[in-house]
Amino acid sequence: MISFEEAYKIVLDHAIEFGQEVVPLAESHGRILAEKIYADRDFPPFDRVTKDGIAIQCAAYAQGIRRFKIQGIAAAGSPQQELEDVHSCIEVMTGAVLPKQADTVVMYEHLELHEGFATLQKEVKKHQNIHDQGSDESKGNLVLAEGTRISSAHIGVLASVGQHHLKVKTTPKIAVISTGNELVDVDQIPSPHQIRKSNSHTLKAALKLENIDCKLLHFNDLKSDLELGLSEALEAFDVLLLSGGVSKGKYDFLPQTFEKLGVKRLFHRVGQRPGKPFWFGRHPDQQCILFAFPGNPASTFANYHVYFISWLHAALGLPSPNYQVVLQEAFENTTDLTRFIRASVNLTDGKIWANLVMGNGSGDLTSLTQANGFVRLEPLTTYEVGDRVPFYPTRRIL
Amino acid sequence: MISFEEAYKIVLDHAIEFGQEVVPLAESHGRILAEKIYADRDFPPFDRVTKDGIAIQCAAYAQGIRRFKIQGIAAAGSPQQELEDVHSCIEVMTGAVLPKQADTVVMYEHLELHEGFATLQKEVKKHQNIHDQGSDESKGNLVLAEGTRISSAHIGVLASVGQHHLKVKTTPKIAVISTGNELVDVDQIPSPHQIRKSNSHTLKAALKLENIDCKLLHFNDLKSDLELGLSEALEAFDVLLLSGGVSKGKYDFLPQTFEKLGVKRLFHRVGQRPGKPFWFGRHPDQQCILFAFPGNPASTFANYHVYFISWLHAALGLPSPNYQVVLQEAFENTTDLTRFIRASVNLTDGKIWANLVMGNGSGDLTSLTQANGFVRLEPLTTYEVGDRVPFYPTRRIL
Repeated sequence: MISFEEAYKIVLDHAIEFGQEVVPLAESHGRILAEKIYADRDFPPFDRVTKDGIAIQCAAYAQGIRRFKIQGIAAAGSPQQELEDVHSCIEVMTGAVLPKQADTVVMYEHLELHEGFATLQKEVKKHQNIHDQGSDESKGNLVLAEGTRISSAHIGVLASVGQHHLKVKTTPKIAVISTGNELVDVDQIPSPHQIRKSNSHTLKAALKLENIDCKLLHFNDLKSDLELGLSEALEAFDVLLLSGGVSKGKYDFLPQTFEKLGVKRLFHRVGQRPGKPFWFGRHPDQQCILFAFPGNPASTFANYHVYFISWLHAALGLPSPNYQVVLQEAFENTTDLTRFIRASVNLTDGKIWANLVMGNGSGDLTSLTQANGFVRLEPLTTYEVGDRVPFYPTRRIL
Repeated sequence: MISFEEAYKIVLDHAIEFGQEVVPLAESHGRILAEKIYADRDFPPFDRVTKDGIAIQCAAYAQGIRRFKIQGIAAAGSPQQELEDVHSCIEVMTGAVLPKQADTVVMYEHLELHEGFATLQKEVKKHQNIHDQGSDESKGNLVLAEGTRISSAHIGVLASVGQHHLKVKTTPKIAVISTGNELVDVDQIPSPHQIRKSNSHTLKAALKLENIDCKLLHFNDLKSDLELGLSEALEAFDVLLLSGGVSKGKYDFLPQTFEKLGVKRLFHRVGQRPGKPFWFGRHPDQQCILFAFPGNPASTFANYHVYFISWLHAALGLPSPNYQVVLQEAFENTTDLTRFIRASVNLTDGKIWANLVMGNGSGDLTSLTQANGFVRLEPLTTYEVGDRVPFYPTRRIL
């Protein structure tokens, strides 16, 4: 048995990249950008009018001219026009190209319009109400860095610079595998000694948040079934997330089957609760990574969020999630195990507070729904109210 | 022009429900549960063994018996067995049904096994290592409340109780409509006076986070096009999110077109920056709600997150998002407008800190990507470092 710190380090040390792929803009949300994005033109691409009003030459104003003949209208989306002379103006709309010879825009609120003439009602500053060409970004500037996680705001920038397709990091192909003869499908009525599959559905939903559409597989606790099923899965997938079958029971065939199939065990059993019998390994030829979690829901859920999510971040070149929360209650970890305690975090007065959700053991049905993450507590450590502890969110909180 | 507070109240007062629908479990993640969920059986459904080992009758231990004949093995997923007598034991695996007549489980680590007999090596407590039938939930208990947002943890509970299909709140049918002759598609090369559409792509991505797959429409600034397009959209959709065409420009035809089509204006122009020309209305017959945002990206993005997201929460029966962050820098709002300032929030030392991202005006290309939300600052107010202010996240932060 190894410590949490050792196990965590080994998991991160086995993060590998899965290459790059080109996706349409509409499918890039939440993905990790795998190329640098440059401005394909100046932004704004022209001297852009920022108020509805008229465009004039400021020199005319300086000469004392206050009344301008309206020469025409420039709408957003129409080609650039040109002022005829200092006595003329052009009505300009927000988003329009500033006319040639014009250098100043006066908004309607500061004008009187009468029979084809505009008269200034207020002082004018040269260059007002113009958003200069290239003042946001010059053509060729880097606008988005490689490795950026694409949010909706990034989609706007990508659209603006014409990136209708873009290179993103490929996510691993993942199978979520449930094992255990006691498990039946969700739409079945279990016999008294059976229960329905739940972990695999939970993980499938959690993986969707990572933009990963996994495959669900199930194998019974029969050595031959496991061997055949796993040998196929090792070839077809980059990562296997398993739940169940890794404890010391007589039908916990997974560890021996993994080794028979050539998977290298990197560790088995971690000094933590829940999730102690966690088995982690890698097939040296097929490069497949195996996270084999203990089967009870809290163990699988905690290990997925603590280890797998950090591993996935590393594989995608992102920093590991690293959150700290403030304990709202005292706790004494009297065990020599690292504890992952269900916590309900709330954001109050600008602080991130955590209340512990004490369930009825790791098989408890609903306590995971009452929590929005896990706090990590060190072995043999006493915590006071207000202590800061590491936190692993299991759903969006902010 | 009305104040932010008035506008916000009017928007929330117009939140309406969109009914319910039944979806498969696999598509329910992120949706709002529209029914109460009850335990369809006891959880656990039987007295469940929680350690691999043997099951005995504790009375035998009390009588001094320490060596038990191994009568058989009970795996998880096999029907309940029965102890023959006090001198017998059954090997039991985690997840197995506790055999009849047995009331105590001794883990392998505390046993010596030899030639068909198990000998106790440690003290035994009656009832140890058993998870009692119904101790998590009794059959018929409420396990998930109506109105719950379904996270991956909830998916596990729903699977456990056999909810392969479930009732969720219907989300509104939404069209995101861009307007403006200056706009071209992302895959086109714009002429010097044109720019590419970006707001509609941003909003489409943002709506995906709300599990809403919107339709994108575009209308040019031509009264007849707008009238035809909008009258069709008013019939086909529950909500229209528009960007552009609501300022005072000569081609800002939207307000007059809305009114011509019978849409009731609830307000136009709000004392805020950015996003002042926001037009909000509702068609009394078609029940369609219109959020018409000013066209520059910061205005659309701020108004979407401030008003639309709160409206959507209310329509789905959720409380309005209500976050507070701690300012990491001082700021003086010298205007008489409510300001929404781009902010980059970081979680440090258990606190939620906000740095202001001062962009180059509301048309700035990339500053929205440097922020992860907006802070709200009151008119004519001076803020010091450490002050707490309302915050509207624009992507997941925790």
